[in-house]
Amino acid sequence: MSMSGVAVIGVGMTPISSTSDKSLTELFVQAAKEAIDNAGIDRVDAMYVGNMMSGFLQHQEHLGPLMASALGKEGVPTYKVEAACASGGVAMNVGMKAVLSGLDKIVVVGAVEKMSGYSTPEVTTGLMMAEDRLKVATSGVTFVGLNAMIAREYMHRFKVSHEIMAELPVLCHENALDNPKAQFHKRITVSDVLKSPLVADPLRLYDCSGIGDGAAVVILTSTEEARKFTDTPVEVAASSVASDTLSLYQRKDITMFEASRKAANEAYGRAKLTPADIDVLEVHDAFSVLGLMALEDLGFAQKGKGAQLLVNGECNRDGRLPTNTFGGLKARGHPVGASGMYQIAELTLQLTQHAAKCQVPNPSIGLAQSIGGIGSTVAVHILRRI
Amino acid sequence: MSMSGVAVIGVGMTPISSTSDKSLTELFVQAAKEAIDNAGIDRVDAMYVGNMMSGFLQHQEHLGPLMASALGKEGVPTYKVEAACASGGVAMNVGMKAVLSGLDKIVVVGAVEKMSGYSTPEVTTGLMMAEDRLKVATSGVTFVGLNAMIAREYMHRFKVSHEIMAELPVLCHENALDNPKAQFHKRITVSDVLKSPLVADPLRLYDCSGIGDGAAVVILTSTEEARKFTDTPVEVAASSVASDTLSLYQRKDITMFEASRKAANEAYGRAKLTPADIDVLEVHDAFSVLGLMALEDLGFAQKGKGAQLLVNGECNRDGRLPTNTFGGLKARGHPVGASGMYQIAELTLQLTQHAAKCQVPNPSIGLAQSIGGIGSTVAVHILRRI
Repeated sequence: MSMSGVAVIGVGMTPISSTSDKSLTELFVQAAKEAIDNAGIDRVDAMYVGNMMSGFLQHQEHLGPLMASALGKEGVPTYKVEAACASGGVAMNVGMKAVLSGLDKIVVVGAVEKMSGYSTPEVTTGLMMAEDRLKVATSGVTFVGLNAMIAREYMHRFKVSHEIMAELPVLCHENALDNPKAQFHKRITVSDVLKSPLVADPLRLYDCSGIGDGAAVVILTSTEEARKFTDTPVEVAASSVASDTLSLYQRKDITMFEASRKAANEAYGRAKLTPADIDVLEVHDAFSVLGLMALEDLGFAQKGKGAQLLVNGECNRDGRLPTNTFGGLKARGHPVGASGMYQIAELTLQLTQHAAKCQVPNPSIGLAQSIGGIGSTVAVHILRRI
Repeated sequence: MSMSGVAVIGVGMTPISSTSDKSLTELFVQAAKEAIDNAGIDRVDAMYVGNMMSGFLQHQEHLGPLMASALGKEGVPTYKVEAACASGGVAMNVGMKAVLSGLDKIVVVGAVEKMSGYSTPEVTTGLMMAEDRLKVATSGVTFVGLNAMIAREYMHRFKVSHEIMAELPVLCHENALDNPKAQFHKRITVSDVLKSPLVADPLRLYDCSGIGDGAAVVILTSTEEARKFTDTPVEVAASSVASDTLSLYQRKDITMFEASRKAANEAYGRAKLTPADIDVLEVHDAFSVLGLMALEDLGFAQKGKGAQLLVNGECNRDGRLPTNTFGGLKARGHPVGASGMYQIAELTLQLTQHAAKCQVPNPSIGLAQSIGGIGSTVAVHILRRI
């Protein structure tokens, strides 16, 4: 990384919907065209497509040439990158390395997922592809069931009430009201969360992100080249990926994710920053408990104390650590393989002052955390206005 | 690439079998341990896993942490890379960029596929995930059917008889007799090919690679570091990936693959080499006609004349251009997402004089071509003894 850094010079996102009539290709192309227009590029050297479920749900692989060809960019090197729900986050990491390698100058990195229109058993089986099929999925436990075990243990050990945990989905739904691309535009209260239907005890409907379709795309180039395309480039100050055991049963402590800590520490070290430097944050709140754990694993709160930041209003858009400012996975939506890329696109909008009604005051550094499976993959990105 | 190049310092391969009782994980771990031992490394900085079908066939994604954890390497950044049948080839490209980025010093790049134990309709549907699901697969055409259309047109336009085309599978089966890891150990004749059952007219059984399970893994590091691990490092002189339209119906000429030509020309340019410099060759002969086209697209023969090299004996192990020296996709086997990685491992064995009974005389430069889908992705690697 001595030569030059990597910058984001354009972003595009589709609205997220569970009633989309768009195909996987149409979703990706819409976001990619928006990003390409936004960056003002006229050539593409490589394209990376993050996605988790297309083989299982759409019986479609080989998304690289599918998308490149649909964009009129056939010829470019292009492939799919997958790490379950962190597919978008790790695609960003792979794209960054491509630019750093010196081989690809202008890179399209996007991610897409289409989950609607399938039966609950199909989507449930699809999500469990993030865990061990032979040793865990065959037991009948679901993905939300595994996260419910985490929530139960976390709430018990740290004496965190459901009322307090519910502050996160309440905040996310509040923020999403200002995001026209969010899946949910509905204000909810703590009481609504607690009265919502039980999904997997203790997690209730409003603790869980929904099923949605969407695509997000960013354009990367070197920081040296970036100002040719935009007056407001955003540098990728760090991009770190860490893994852990694939399965929850293999962990000693299920109330923290070692991969989050490892990726975050590495990212802070590379960027020469600390948690106190972060002005805007996107955490992977697929389930409310994961958002609290993220605040702790990323260094913003002591173990078991993540919810205090929410209770104190620090995570509000006018607080010290604005979090999930476009609605997060819970309310912006969680098209699983694409969510990590939505985070990057949203942070870029924040850092370039293009976040419209979601804008927080003058942020210069943002951090995004994307989780694959039960904390088995974590991608942490730190973006910085330059 | 100005700073340093990338070198292969270790390889591992499982035998290929259609009656394997090994899981996806067991296959990968076996090859990875062999490669790690072969390289003598004691740490891993990142791991890339190429695979095409695990989501569809095994209902298992997230192969990165699955494999890293099974290897006792949990923690490392790891992800799956997919480009249909070229998944192994493009994983190599991604791994090389990771080393060139300077972020990953010692990288494990492997690929695995498990295709046995499933019904023919399942595997047939799985293979068609390489083509457009909505616009082509739903017509009912199979993957071999599409390749049969290519063969028909190629044979007609260039007046190539089936007898001549059959020279390639005959050579591959001959070479595989000396490869203990090959799927097929059976000498065949041109007459056997012509009398074998029709699969999709004009392609017969012995024109087609089979269904098999396998994994291959290589270890990469910088050329500067390579000699710490081995006296015989092999440099990745070039790694190029190109794409084309996803679908055959979108092409003007189906008797050549533009992506092969593009990737090959780029690779020759980067390595500052020409086809005449290549001492040993691995082509993607999933169907016999593809091998002939490869000889042409890669610059070894004029259009329509690829088979002449075979007829003249030039592709034999003692010829001018030894080709598919371990048996190729046809006889070594074609565990689709893994085949591109087998090619890299086999070339490395050739260039380090470790190819045992498959060894060709003192080669210093090798080229591998890996195809995804109907020529929709092509990865070309040039390896060089240093």
